[in-house]
Amino acid sequence: KWSFGRFLVQESHRQDSANLLIFIMLLTLTILTIWLFKHRRFRFLHETGLAMIYGLLVGVILRFGIHVPQNMSDVILSCAVNASPATLLVNVSGRFYEYTLKGEVSRGKGLQVQDDEMLRKVTFDPEVFFNILLPPIIFHAGYSLKRRHFFRNIGSILAYAFMGTVISCFVIGLIMYGFVSFMKVVGQLGGDFFFTDCLLFGAIISATDPVTVLAIFNELKVDVDLYALLFGESVLNDAVAIILSSSIAAYQPAGDNSHSFEAMAMLKSFGIFLGVFSGSFALGVATGVMTFTKLRDFPLLETALFFLMSWSTFLLAEACGFTGVVAVLFCGITQAHYTFNNLSPDSQDRTKQLFELLNFLAENFIFSYMGLTLFSFQSHVFNPMFIIGAFVAVFLGRAANIYPLSFLLNLGRKNKIGYNFQHVMMFAGLRGAMTFALSIRDTATYARQMMFSTTLLIVFFTVWICGGGTTPMLTFMTMLDGSQRRNTKHESAWPFRIWYNFDHNYLKPLLTHSGPPLTATLPTCCGPLARCLTSPQAYEVWTQHNVIQ
Amino acid sequence: KWSFGRFLVQESHRQDSANLLIFIMLLTLTILTIWLFKHRRFRFLHETGLAMIYGLLVGVILRFGIHVPQNMSDVILSCAVNASPATLLVNVSGRFYEYTLKGEVSRGKGLQVQDDEMLRKVTFDPEVFFNILLPPIIFHAGYSLKRRHFFRNIGSILAYAFMGTVISCFVIGLIMYGFVSFMKVVGQLGGDFFFTDCLLFGAIISATDPVTVLAIFNELKVDVDLYALLFGESVLNDAVAIILSSSIAAYQPAGDNSHSFEAMAMLKSFGIFLGVFSGSFALGVATGVMTFTKLRDFPLLETALFFLMSWSTFLLAEACGFTGVVAVLFCGITQAHYTFNNLSPDSQDRTKQLFELLNFLAENFIFSYMGLTLFSFQSHVFNPMFIIGAFVAVFLGRAANIYPLSFLLNLGRKNKIGYNFQHVMMFAGLRGAMTFALSIRDTATYARQMMFSTTLLIVFFTVWICGGGTTPMLTFMTMLDGSQRRNTKHESAWPFRIWYNFDHNYLKPLLTHSGPPLTATLPTCCGPLARCLTSPQAYEVWTQHNVIQ
Repeated sequence: KWSFGRFLVQESHRQDSANLLIFIMLLTLTILTIWLFKHRRFRFLHETGLAMIYGLLVGVILRFGIHVPQNMSDVILSCAVNASPATLLVNVSGRFYEYTLKGEVSRGKGLQVQDDEMLRKVTFDPEVFFNILLPPIIFHAGYSLKRRHFFRNIGSILAYAFMGTVISCFVIGLIMYGFVSFMKVVGQLGGDFFFTDCLLFGAIISATDPVTVLAIFNELKVDVDLYALLFGESVLNDAVAIILSSSIAAYQPAGDNSHSFEAMAMLKSFGIFLGVFSGSFALGVATGVMTFTKLRDFPLLETALFFLMSWSTFLLAEACGFTGVVAVLFCGITQAHYTFNNLSPDSQDRTKQLFELLNFLAENFIFSYMGLTLFSFQSHVFNPMFIIGAFVAVFLGRAANIYPLSFLLNLGRKNKIGYNFQHVMMFAGLRGAMTFALSIRDTATYARQMMFSTTLLIVFFTVWICGGGTTPMLTFMTMLDGSQRRNTKHESAWPFRIWYNFDHNYLKPLLTHSGPPLTATLPTCCGPLARCLTSPQAYEVWTQHNVIQ
Repeated sequence: KWSFGRFLVQESHRQDSANLLIFIMLLTLTILTIWLFKHRRFRFLHETGLAMIYGLLVGVILRFGIHVPQNMSDVILSCAVNASPATLLVNVSGRFYEYTLKGEVSRGKGLQVQDDEMLRKVTFDPEVFFNILLPPIIFHAGYSLKRRHFFRNIGSILAYAFMGTVISCFVIGLIMYGFVSFMKVVGQLGGDFFFTDCLLFGAIISATDPVTVLAIFNELKVDVDLYALLFGESVLNDAVAIILSSSIAAYQPAGDNSHSFEAMAMLKSFGIFLGVFSGSFALGVATGVMTFTKLRDFPLLETALFFLMSWSTFLLAEACGFTGVVAVLFCGITQAHYTFNNLSPDSQDRTKQLFELLNFLAENFIFSYMGLTLFSFQSHVFNPMFIIGAFVAVFLGRAANIYPLSFLLNLGRKNKIGYNFQHVMMFAGLRGAMTFALSIRDTATYARQMMFSTTLLIVFFTVWICGGGTTPMLTFMTMLDGSQRRNTKHESAWPFRIWYNFDHNYLKPLLTHSGPPLTATLPTCCGPLARCLTSPQAYEVWTQHNVIQ
């Protein structure tokens, strides 16, 4: 009996290796094709779109090509417990085996699940996305953010990211609720679909993807301020969507009858949202600032420390009940702004390259996994009407975000957001990794499954069609309107100027080795304190500089 | 009910984050202390020893400092199945929950296990060591091997690694069998302990650790050939030990009565050993050679591809039933020899730094985890008599490996292995990551638990005492014997010379862009073939070179 148990474990180990191997082969193939594309200067398909296509192909092969033998290793136990425990000890004729909860299998699928052992095996724990794959992507986004232009447009970016995402979420939610109500009347709906589900769908689908934006606009020469606007929006977007969806989900299971709209609970959700966001923000900035690394002589140690601190920010936030992804984003921005200057040149290269590589791998993994999921996921619910509704809602939601807000922002901005650029923002709102990760997180109910399947289609559509079409569209736009690149220099709103001065005169000298020493910027009465807080290196550089002058 | 289930999952997610956070904090602390040590030039304690101490401290805190609340989320089910299925579906009042097998809980511990939920949570799946932590360490060892000196001494290295490890395994096995038999008579033994268990213990404990050897001897100026000997032995050692132990384990569960010694089965094990080793070797070399990377213009893609190919070697070997670690070792050696020359200079730096970092993190993680395990592992069996026996056996086993083999090898070697160096090899046979990983892989039975606890103590002892003492010992030795550094240059055995010429004239031109083109080295009749196989770059370089001459 024991050797049989061992055999099973060994078999499953081999199976795991084979599954992981499939993904690595996929990634290898993607890399080779990307290289070919870059070499030949193809641009009509982005690398993430490519990864998705390969994933799709492998999904088709796994689904239809391989005969899956009936696997009898699943056993259904009925038991008297009335909750699902996290750990199960099973007493098999005197020996105890430990089982861990993997998740709820959808109602009625319990018996059917046995059939496709192979396919199910290729499915990862959704938490892997949140704990391992998303952090490097988001961190890299923060770390490689062009901070100067980001901070200069911080007001507009925050408006798009916060108000815009909330608007989009509610517009999509309301439109979907209309569609769903209609479907219920017509009898097209196969299960429950509450208003909160609609709102959740709105939150999930409102997260636009920074990855493709970064890739496409980096190569083209667009107005840097407008680029910062687009990129900043899509990065913060993710943070807002993740917190929005989790606060909607927290509001949801209060009781089976309360799926209706309540102003009080709504307010509570808003409170949770603010609390979690500011908590995550504070934590990210705090740990980002804390990573003074002074191990200058040992680049390996320095890089390792940097990497560990970034990851521990994520884990700390998760352990505190905040949102790790948001914390990691602001940690990345802070580290790039302050800590990066403290690193030795060798470590600067190393950390950049490391995060670049991690980001690249994680990104391609997610997108090829997305392609795979279309065929390997067991409980797809494709409802044509819901899908059409979703496409309409996503389009209108994006429009309701961009155009009114741009109009309002243009009232206050000196560097106006042109109509052409508004169209570009409308068009470049691709849905990507975050949307996928949010929708795969919970696929237990009928509503969630339908949402997941539809989300997948929307991601495919936007990445392939919008992603591929952005480059031609942009060249067309910039040809039309060459006036956009005029007045970009030296335009700063007053809050930005105040912040810049404060940062340059006090924070940078305090936290890094660069900038003027505090002795020069603080009033003379604070002399001794200033000298003690300034790093000796910065002080020396400054003194030499003044003597020479 | 559903929300309760969700809550549990969320709670366990938070708990996981907190656990991972503990480790990351540990690593951060270790890095900071290592930096302090390097800065102050302390040498009496190696960084791995330091990581272990921190691990120990955290283990003590977790064990005694934190009050662990009684966790009622575990449920014991008794059921009628007579084997342990890999997946379990539990029907909880109409909903199906899926559970996956985590492993067997030790006999009798089934009920006790609930108490220390927190401690148990910090325990990782042993397979994590083999699949995630060991590969980068071993790959790095292969990649950073000084190949010239390694190949020059390949005969002696293979002798130590193969014959030496087998000798050590059997000597330790026999001595332990004596001890165990004696313990059985005296009544000190609390469970079964067969001869195969003794042999397995011998195999596990015979793997010496390249990590510390690399670290200690790199800083000191030792004769490079002798260093290659020591390092090469300790690297290949691991490969031999891992295959040896798995072939012993495969031989073991043939039936409960056949734990006795059988010549036939022994021979079969030997066959398995040879098959697995040569298979893994061939696979590693093949994939190492296969990674022609020609994506020269895109260092990111190149690095990613290099990384993925190395890891897929590991997975491919595991999926084929070979030993991933061995494959990865030879893949590393091959890639360093051939593929490295094909990389762009930027990628050469990147890959080196990446593997260095991964190795550093994995190594420190393993060693601090080792420290933690001493207190957090639930089923320790510390038997003083067995421990004493093990220490004696390990000492004698190492002696039986080094001294007789050195004597035999010295008969054929021109550059003799001096007595002093034999003592160093004897003393520097530290037990480390591989021994730990092999012994934690299976801790189901009484025998295995006793082996695990004892192994842990041996690792602690060797890393702290031997590792810390090697530097003073070496300085003492080299002071005594300055004659060792004489005749190291240009001494090659004839098989090495043949190999070197073949490699330089045919393999290098074929597989890399460096070396003379095949047109110059192959006979003229093969002209067209040679021209077609040589890379254009190498050909150009060579032609220019000749024209100038």
